[in-house]
Amino acid sequence: MSERRFTNEQIDRLLRPKSVAVIGASDRKGALGATLLNNLVQYEFDGDIYPVNPKRDELLGLKVYHTVDELPEGIDCAVLAIPRPFVLDTVRGLAARKCGAVVIYSAGFSEAGEEGMKEQLELGEIAREHGMVIEGPNCLGCTNYVERVPLTFVETNMQTPPKGTRAVGIASQSGALAAVLATALHPRGCYVSTSVSTGNEAASGVEDYVNWLVDDEDTHVIAMYVESLRRPKAFIEAARRARAAGKPIIMLHPGKSNKAQESAATHTGAMAGDYALMKTKLAREGVIFADTLEELEDITEIALRCPALPGANMAVLGESGALRGLAFDIAEDIGLDLIDLNDDNSPALRAVLPDFVPVSNPTDITAIGLSEPEIYTKVLTALLDDDRVGSVVASIIQSDPITSGIKFPHIIKVLEDGSFAKPLVFAGVDEGATVPQEYIDGLRKVGIPWFPSTERAYRAIARLADLAKRDLTDQSGEPLPLSGMAEVSGVVPEYKAKELLRPAGIAFPESKFAPSADEAAAVAETIGFPVVMKAQAAALGHKSDAGGVILNLKTADEVREAFTRMYDNVASYDSSITLDGVLVEKMGRMGTEMIVGAKSDPQWGPVVLAGFGGVTAEILKDVKLFTPDMGVERVKEGLLALKQAPILKGYRGSPELDVDALADLIVKIGQVMTGNPSIREIDLNPVIIHPKGDGVVALDALMLVD
Amino acid sequence: MSERRFTNEQIDRLLRPKSVAVIGASDRKGALGATLLNNLVQYEFDGDIYPVNPKRDELLGLKVYHTVDELPEGIDCAVLAIPRPFVLDTVRGLAARKCGAVVIYSAGFSEAGEEGMKEQLELGEIAREHGMVIEGPNCLGCTNYVERVPLTFVETNMQTPPKGTRAVGIASQSGALAAVLATALHPRGCYVSTSVSTGNEAASGVEDYVNWLVDDEDTHVIAMYVESLRRPKAFIEAARRARAAGKPIIMLHPGKSNKAQESAATHTGAMAGDYALMKTKLAREGVIFADTLEELEDITEIALRCPALPGANMAVLGESGALRGLAFDIAEDIGLDLIDLNDDNSPALRAVLPDFVPVSNPTDITAIGLSEPEIYTKVLTALLDDDRVGSVVASIIQSDPITSGIKFPHIIKVLEDGSFAKPLVFAGVDEGATVPQEYIDGLRKVGIPWFPSTERAYRAIARLADLAKRDLTDQSGEPLPLSGMAEVSGVVPEYKAKELLRPAGIAFPESKFAPSADEAAAVAETIGFPVVMKAQAAALGHKSDAGGVILNLKTADEVREAFTRMYDNVASYDSSITLDGVLVEKMGRMGTEMIVGAKSDPQWGPVVLAGFGGVTAEILKDVKLFTPDMGVERVKEGLLALKQAPILKGYRGSPELDVDALADLIVKIGQVMTGNPSIREIDLNPVIIHPKGDGVVALDALMLVD
Repeated sequence: MSERRFTNEQIDRLLRPKSVAVIGASDRKGALGATLLNNLVQYEFDGDIYPVNPKRDELLGLKVYHTVDELPEGIDCAVLAIPRPFVLDTVRGLAARKCGAVVIYSAGFSEAGEEGMKEQLELGEIAREHGMVIEGPNCLGCTNYVERVPLTFVETNMQTPPKGTRAVGIASQSGALAAVLATALHPRGCYVSTSVSTGNEAASGVEDYVNWLVDDEDTHVIAMYVESLRRPKAFIEAARRARAAGKPIIMLHPGKSNKAQESAATHTGAMAGDYALMKTKLAREGVIFADTLEELEDITEIALRCPALPGANMAVLGESGALRGLAFDIAEDIGLDLIDLNDDNSPALRAVLPDFVPVSNPTDITAIGLSEPEIYTKVLTALLDDDRVGSVVASIIQSDPITSGIKFPHIIKVLEDGSFAKPLVFAGVDEGATVPQEYIDGLRKVGIPWFPSTERAYRAIARLADLAKRDLTDQSGEPLPLSGMAEVSGVVPEYKAKELLRPAGIAFPESKFAPSADEAAAVAETIGFPVVMKAQAAALGHKSDAGGVILNLKTADEVREAFTRMYDNVASYDSSITLDGVLVEKMGRMGTEMIVGAKSDPQWGPVVLAGFGGVTAEILKDVKLFTPDMGVERVKEGLLALKQAPILKGYRGSPELDVDALADLIVKIGQVMTGNPSIREIDLNPVIIHPKGDGVVALDALMLVD
Repeated sequence: MSERRFTNEQIDRLLRPKSVAVIGASDRKGALGATLLNNLVQYEFDGDIYPVNPKRDELLGLKVYHTVDELPEGIDCAVLAIPRPFVLDTVRGLAARKCGAVVIYSAGFSEAGEEGMKEQLELGEIAREHGMVIEGPNCLGCTNYVERVPLTFVETNMQTPPKGTRAVGIASQSGALAAVLATALHPRGCYVSTSVSTGNEAASGVEDYVNWLVDDEDTHVIAMYVESLRRPKAFIEAARRARAAGKPIIMLHPGKSNKAQESAATHTGAMAGDYALMKTKLAREGVIFADTLEELEDITEIALRCPALPGANMAVLGESGALRGLAFDIAEDIGLDLIDLNDDNSPALRAVLPDFVPVSNPTDITAIGLSEPEIYTKVLTALLDDDRVGSVVASIIQSDPITSGIKFPHIIKVLEDGSFAKPLVFAGVDEGATVPQEYIDGLRKVGIPWFPSTERAYRAIARLADLAKRDLTDQSGEPLPLSGMAEVSGVVPEYKAKELLRPAGIAFPESKFAPSADEAAAVAETIGFPVVMKAQAAALGHKSDAGGVILNLKTADEVREAFTRMYDNVASYDSSITLDGVLVEKMGRMGTEMIVGAKSDPQWGPVVLAGFGGVTAEILKDVKLFTPDMGVERVKEGLLALKQAPILKGYRGSPELDVDALADLIVKIGQVMTGNPSIREIDLNPVIIHPKGDGVVALDALMLVD
């Protein structure tokens, strides 16, 4: 079932209106209703305009209506430039007039407290009831640059993308950021198709607009600012459709830091979700994350302008040895892969370089380009022609108009005939150098983004290459329903959790539940000594604290004695707990302790967590999240990216550990989560990982079931 | 003793010459000797020019000399724009003519192999013998922008700093980077005083030029690109003089990554040093490090333009809640401290904000500034006036000329009367917005740097605030000479190392050396059981591997038996090793294992290392370096910045550990290193850190002595 709230046709009435009412139209300088009306008139909105103002009869030559009730029925969109107290009644009136969409600028709703929240919920109710799109409240409106519809009170620079030009669609929960993005993209020669700021999202949200942008033929890349996705499933659906349509989504989402999450919550009144979980889920859907506004703009330009997205393995043409070292440092810092090119493995490159220039990456062609500028064309062509190379950067000393004039034409030439479907990015080394605009335009025309500085180009490419490195196609197996789930709920004690999970292929030490001392002794005889005994009861959260774990029992008598002692321990720990019995388990081999867990988020669905166990790991947050649809190879990649991964690979003579088995366990837990929607949490801690080939064993298991 | 090679007066002959010879002068377009001569003539070099060319009699109206021997004696500076094979003889000829300085552009010396290295050493020899400054070889020359002396073959934009303007001196081992820096700084309205590229540094190096720039009254900030400091002591001396003179040194030095270090080595033929050690030493001298070229430029502008360097605790005026979250994220990422401001702790700020705007940091003044622009002046003044605040950023949505026109004047006003000696930085949010140049110039004129994007301003301020947070004044105690050092050399076995170090106040478990089984038993009786026995011999590096450590001996008989067993173990491990005897030591309490080490670098002198012990720590590189002059407080700061520092502070109910005692140990080891120059290495591993008040104990000790 789709969680979309509005169809494209409904949203068309907001973003492609044929008629617009301006409620609170004015000619008072600085008034929202004045700038808005002015925008519509100035940019010659190609539809009917209905200004509404009780005190005026005419504005900018247009007839003014005195009340909403006077308006004709069925106006596509009404924009409310009026104070908050009048909003709710006006929206009701507009709904009665069968208005298709409403834009609400006013703040003071959910972000302002209880009363505002109540009114906002009413707005949502009206929207639902009447199928009326509401944008906002607390937003800056929207602008369709293609059809020249500026429904915003921001002074708008209406740059309409020429036919056939690729353009960026903007969906932002912040109006300021939507405006800022357009201001920043336009001077870069990047056109915006449509920009929507969603504000408090009383009814429509970024999910709906992204869906619309995916279907908008004038939109090719989607840039987003998000503080809290209110309908994760609808957004995931939109992200999948965007990927299928080949329209990259680039998202700036504060919340890496706790303080940012708090700030977002107070700013729009939205609950901050789990940032890491959100990012894991959306990365899996191909969403590209920017860490800063600079990155959002930089990544967007590359995605928009280049003939294809960067693949892994970047190659660089440089003109100074000094820049090589800097490139290595930044590449290591941001996880950018510089492909290893040398005289032996790159004959084509070798052939076009002068003898005294060794093949390398970055290739340092020295200052020879000044006297033999054809070298730019030759080297860049050789790099783009190399199947191993996923993107190419020309890191150029621009100096001045004369020097630029020598270099640029030979770089522009490389993509002129359109034979490469691979990104070539021009990155200046000397930011601020005077470069004639015609050269920059020349680059852009053939699909080469111009970056004033190299470092920022590297960062943006790293983010995009990261997407290329993710294989989004591999899949885990089918969901694994567990039998017996119907009989459990709440906290499931260890022995039952192990009974439930064992058939799914999760390895536990040999063990058996025993409700009496004699049965415990008998179990121990069967599975062999030494054994460990563990107290079992749903109410017993922390067995160890209660004296509910006794290790290394070597005889039947010791087992019997331990049974009695354990009941005593638990009774004196908390007399309200009644034990079901004990679990008698074979003592396992020692090994490296890992943790594997899973939880099901009510909004985002299940996610699996794995990493190193123990205090150190907790302090270092040395864990990774996995979506349950990931296959073993993706999971292995994640595990080998843990900070302490060298331990897994075998460090200083210690053996390589069984990462395959651990990955397999993680994938299985994911399948269990998808196969059993009632499971809220699974916690396997510790999981012992043995040397390669010897597998993994989960020593403890906890489940929380709805 | 100073390691400076040239006096200011000698370097004046290069950087403030009254006469310049151009060897290889030419009028062939693109020839180095042509651009150089052209630069001198075009910028009206205010001294005598002596072109030298065997085939010409006149160039640009100047008399041409046919050979160096024809030149008058005592010319200040000769620039060699000639092929490498002619360089050495020409330099000899110039030395004979008492020429004061020589610039050598040609490459092909130390970076090209053995023969080149030999010639380069000869150049150094000539320089030393004749007191002649040699710049290069393999360099781009130098330019004194104040006295208009362009001794470079790069097309130069001769922007002379107006009298009284603060300017940047550039010292770079890469000519390309020196040129790039000037190109990038000039459009930012930052003037360059003098720029020198040192190339292979046959004779003079960045050390000499930094010393000269410190004394140059036209230089106020020193920007550097360095791949390898060849004379650390001379550079440290220069850095100290720069700090005393209030001239910040900002350094870009690749080498964080191993690949960068390799690249630097092949690029200039210099040996790559220990990057971390270099950085630790120079940070202690107040040098500011940039990670990228962008940062170098950004930091330099702030250091140059602002009335003072940023202190810790940044405050931000912003205009959108969305930017708050982004600020928190980036601040956490780059270690930037945003001061906590709220309604209660900031009455002055509270007083100037409208009621509906809560005091916070970043403060989100919303869009109110458009209608009440005085708020910019009021809020920024209140922030600058706040003693807790170390720097202020105005993070502004510039939009367009009209919007900028509303906001900029009220921001410029803040510093107009020069009453604040604290940085105010303007950071645009919407990079690329059209802002009239007059507004940007207006900011700059009153000392406000203009940054097109906020993120880069934050990064640059973070680097500078980091310097402010370093207390460079605290000191460790006097050097601690150890008695008995004369008797040891090479690897010092554990018992001797402990004997030497114990009087310095390093805590070891009670122990005594014993050369026989009976003496070992007697020692054990004296210090009390249980004891550990450890084999002692200089040649025995890894005691444990050889069966040379036996733990938990509980009786005198066990000690005697262990003695014999240990001799057998070591004999069968390596029959060439003769034991001195054994160390009998009290078994210590368990605790968290740390490591403390020290080494004396032949170039940089001693440095102390400390961090967490064990495999995990090694993988995570969870160690810090300390200079031996640091006092206990600085060392504690470093320890509490370790990744696993929560363990030291007491994590999840485990006690706080004795960081004071560990810091004290580290400081003492530093004092030992400075007091005993013959010590090459000390290794205390492990050092057990006990709960606060219970101290630290080093279980093992190794020393390496020259």
